[in-house]
Amino acid sequence: MKLVTFNDGAGLNRVGYIDGDQVIELEVASAREFFERDRQVGETGNRYRLAQVRLRAPIVPKKFFHTAGNFREHHEDLARVNWSHPVNKGIVFFQNVDAIIGPDDPIVYPTQLTSELDYELEMAIVIGKPGKFFSAEQAVEHIGGYLVFNDITARDIQRNEMKSGVFSFSKAIDTFCPIGPYILTADEVDDPHDLDMELRVNGQVRQKSNTRKMSVSIPQLVAYHSPQVYSAGDLLTTGTVAGVAASTDDPFANYLKPGDVVEAEIEKLGILRNTVVSWRDAYGTEPPPADSWV
Amino acid sequence: MKLVTFNDGAGLNRVGYIDGDQVIELEVASAREFFERDRQVGETGNRYRLAQVRLRAPIVPKKFFHTAGNFREHHEDLARVNWSHPVNKGIVFFQNVDAIIGPDDPIVYPTQLTSELDYELEMAIVIGKPGKFFSAEQAVEHIGGYLVFNDITARDIQRNEMKSGVFSFSKAIDTFCPIGPYILTADEVDDPHDLDMELRVNGQVRQKSNTRKMSVSIPQLVAYHSPQVYSAGDLLTTGTVAGVAASTDDPFANYLKPGDVVEAEIEKLGILRNTVVSWRDAYGTEPPPADSWV
Repeated sequence: MKLVTFNDGAGLNRVGYIDGDQVIELEVASAREFFERDRQVGETGNRYRLAQVRLRAPIVPKKFFHTAGNFREHHEDLARVNWSHPVNKGIVFFQNVDAIIGPDDPIVYPTQLTSELDYELEMAIVIGKPGKFFSAEQAVEHIGGYLVFNDITARDIQRNEMKSGVFSFSKAIDTFCPIGPYILTADEVDDPHDLDMELRVNGQVRQKSNTRKMSVSIPQLVAYHSPQVYSAGDLLTTGTVAGVAASTDDPFANYLKPGDVVEAEIEKLGILRNTVVSWRDAYGTEPPPADSWV
Repeated sequence: MKLVTFNDGAGLNRVGYIDGDQVIELEVASAREFFERDRQVGETGNRYRLAQVRLRAPIVPKKFFHTAGNFREHHEDLARVNWSHPVNKGIVFFQNVDAIIGPDDPIVYPTQLTSELDYELEMAIVIGKPGKFFSAEQAVEHIGGYLVFNDITARDIQRNEMKSGVFSFSKAIDTFCPIGPYILTADEVDDPHDLDMELRVNGQVRQKSNTRKMSVSIPQLVAYHSPQVYSAGDLLTTGTVAGVAASTDDPFANYLKPGDVVEAEIEKLGILRNTVVSWRDAYGTEPPPADSWV
């Protein structure tokens, strides 16, 4: 099932699934509740034409685990340009659930805070069933689905944060967490470790890999983080691949700028497309001054 | 108002406020909703004797911002024992909302994961009004209240995490986020920058300071993190003070162990008391083996 959250045109968000060129509405208030109710959810009988609804972020989870270091190519990529820290396996922190945006939502460029806006293509796992302290063997039944995540990052802020051993603000700014366009439920993914991944900026391929290159399997990853407790609907990312702008020979030529269209695509999981817009285009004003006490 | 979440004895959580030896029930489903409705909430007419209700975690926020580095004494303390990183001002990451526990709830010691369990007394701010990208002058109206937070930390996991520039798992394990016993609303705190702080383990004073020793004011701190977007009811911690076990001359004599009673106290905000319990005492079994692929 391709589970979606969509706007019905009357301003309300609905939950449904894509069936060809239609969206079949489900009798549930949110995608999170769909998993909380263990998918035991009926249909309302309403159908919409997919072309006529506005897809929103497919879910807003209670927690959004952000893991890193799973694809060794990303570590090697950054080591090549002398990035300040190794990208070790086992990295985890929480992403900002209030920074989540959906397909076609704008990424607003906060020029008062950063001049190094980067992209990171990642696959995210949707937790279908709550639990804690379980093994990799048990993890499989906790996996509810998969979706595309674009981990928008302000590299200059990140470098500064990492001096103290954190990086969170740099990835948590308003609009920095695009996800979507839909959740593909786990029953429709034969092998999550064999999906092509590609990220494009204005049509130009920047990242290209395959989920088989993960060094830790998805069940291992889900089990490893289970001491932090899962609620149904939680998201857990699986790390990015080679090719982020910061790892290129000319980062400033490759960082995002207003007007850029970013397409994050994973086989079977669809294309997550977002446009970077300036503060003025988003809000009609100049950005407010940034605080600078740090 | 001392806002509380409590169990009425019939198993349901209710919201109310403490009035002497009574709890006055409020007509609202959660403390988060109390702030979402801008405190425009009536009373149900039900009263309970404070001694007869079980206080729970006063709020489960949408986001729990964890800041650090505000009290320079904590940085100096750790520098003295050659801690791996400076504790700079401006550190922020998200705490695990599913690890929140309330007053008198047990902190379960996961011996399969850590042998260095530490405490950290902190004051947390409750965001009363949503907003983003605002100034320190504007921040005051976004502050809804204050409460006590004990930042339970597995130091051995933290040191390992910090090699890659994060620390989150070490503070996000199940039961590691005690808060409470109540939220004191901001209107009842004349000066949040002049509150005595003290943490005791089995009655022995381990941390002792005052909120006046923060190097960044509360409105500055709230404003600084506002690009990450606030929802009503969000929590934002303000950093710990000198005296954590890791900073003492004999950390292993001072780390927490099963049976220890930790009292985290801040003037006007009450005493948050929790007991450390072994896995066996909590669950009646030995802990499951930890994954070790990292």
